[in-house]
Amino acid sequence: MTRPIYERLAVVGCGLIGSSVIRAAREAGVVSQIIVADASEAHRARITELGLADKVTGDIAEAVAEADLVIFAVPVQAMGDAAQAAAATIRPGTTVSDVGSVKGSVAEALRAALPESVFIIPGHPIAGTEYSGPDAGFAELFRDRWVILTPQARDDGPYLEAVTRLSDFWRRLGANVERMDEKHHDLVLAVTSHLPHLIAYNIVGTAADMEEVTRSEVMKYSAGGFRDFTRIAASDPTMWRDVFLGNKDAVLEVLGRFTEDLQALSRAIRWGEGDKLFDLFSRTREIRRGIIAAGQESNEPNFGRDRGKH
Amino acid sequence: MTRPIYERLAVVGCGLIGSSVIRAAREAGVVSQIIVADASEAHRARITELGLADKVTGDIAEAVAEADLVIFAVPVQAMGDAAQAAAATIRPGTTVSDVGSVKGSVAEALRAALPESVFIIPGHPIAGTEYSGPDAGFAELFRDRWVILTPQARDDGPYLEAVTRLSDFWRRLGANVERMDEKHHDLVLAVTSHLPHLIAYNIVGTAADMEEVTRSEVMKYSAGGFRDFTRIAASDPTMWRDVFLGNKDAVLEVLGRFTEDLQALSRAIRWGEGDKLFDLFSRTREIRRGIIAAGQESNEPNFGRDRGKH
Repeated sequence: MTRPIYERLAVVGCGLIGSSVIRAAREAGVVSQIIVADASEAHRARITELGLADKVTGDIAEAVAEADLVIFAVPVQAMGDAAQAAAATIRPGTTVSDVGSVKGSVAEALRAALPESVFIIPGHPIAGTEYSGPDAGFAELFRDRWVILTPQARDDGPYLEAVTRLSDFWRRLGANVERMDEKHHDLVLAVTSHLPHLIAYNIVGTAADMEEVTRSEVMKYSAGGFRDFTRIAASDPTMWRDVFLGNKDAVLEVLGRFTEDLQALSRAIRWGEGDKLFDLFSRTREIRRGIIAAGQESNEPNFGRDRGKH
Repeated sequence: MTRPIYERLAVVGCGLIGSSVIRAAREAGVVSQIIVADASEAHRARITELGLADKVTGDIAEAVAEADLVIFAVPVQAMGDAAQAAAATIRPGTTVSDVGSVKGSVAEALRAALPESVFIIPGHPIAGTEYSGPDAGFAELFRDRWVILTPQARDDGPYLEAVTRLSDFWRRLGANVERMDEKHHDLVLAVTSHLPHLIAYNIVGTAADMEEVTRSEVMKYSAGGFRDFTRIAASDPTMWRDVFLGNKDAVLEVLGRFTEDLQALSRAIRWGEGDKLFDLFSRTREIRRGIIAAGQESNEPNFGRDRGKH
């Protein structure tokens, strides 16, 4: 099955996700040609060195001119400018997607910048690592992960066909594809991704600022649980700043829920209500079992991170 | 180096940590004989089946009678009762330690229950997994991890000698040993272990209770960050209930700090203060680098949990 789905793929922004898309697309044989646009000279040099693309440029307009699939893989708040830079040269009938962690504000930015003759199908692969840049990408990143597409409310044949084609593209990269309403996506991801990152950044900050506990102590004794949080708190700062600004309403809503629950838990500790604690702690075990059963997590103790020790 | 450090080790409570201690002690050849006391008939049967001990009993008094090292490895709130059961038969000069995650209240319970003729040296190995029970243990659990001992304020020769001997025991199991004041231990661990567990339990609970987002969605899209939290939220409910009740003051203090910081972060999102977010998110990256440099974490992307995919 190596028949290409698209002739020319243009990826705008070639960090962890962008470079994983082009690696995976090449390996799966789903595109004939790959063009990369990246604003960073260092990234461009590295992509050329790694031989990841047929053409590497700093000029978005040039990159998208001949493409039949354009994927924007820049931070969420940079999507609008990137799309504007593409608007003049992009061809009618081109499929335009992205990999942003927020869909409402990104879809709006893409629609505002691009001509109506292109097929805008916002997308979000739920996959990543805590590392950034073109060297961090790998072809297997999307395997068995979910990609959410949030198509527009259009039911004309060519658009629906474009959605099917883009779904096929991601499936050939090893992903499962789901369609969803933009607004619902932003709420679901606020729960499963944005709030966890916010909490992780916050707790790492709190620990770093305790006067009575040294940083060296925090690091030495981190195997008691803290280290699990530091992984996602090491994620790209620009990307995550943009996510919180771009999904403000949903993030503040779930954060409000989290804070309420935390206050109740705090109260249970203060009043020594052991049963309440025990009930919650038993309930949360099931969720992990569900995630392992859903193929989204390793069932090895400690994520298998100690495998080398055995 | 297979000379035993103790003649007879009695381990009271044989779950994840207790069973790892006896596996590691046997492998390292640091004890001649191992006696296990466990209240659970199922545990006792399993320990016998696995051949982990020379003697398995339900009777704590019987288990400790001939021991020169007794390690209590039961939940924190059960330490007092276990020590009382040992008090009548324990021999003068026996070293008594534990593996509890809280040291102040445990040390107090041990001192209250046991005769003055024994050497009480509370201890805490900063190691574990999210699994429980005798099958979950493994000999390498303590390798390159830290064990904190919180000796009493005694400077008589035999006591100091007992502390040195217990330190050697843990080192032979592969651990690094640190001594610390009980109160300071409880604050440090509130930061590096208890608060992370509390937050993880809380966020998993919040996510499970969102009416607008189904549990199936939470599980499917957990690779966006949420799944990292579920590991420690799958830890033993009894153990963790006891930790929060046993270290109430320090936990509530660091939880107060965390909540303050979270409110500031929430406000920065609400007012679109991108620079504040970016600054925090950059700072937290360094902490992870420090933990990796300190040998307490894997530097593989995603903890190496995706290794099988590559």
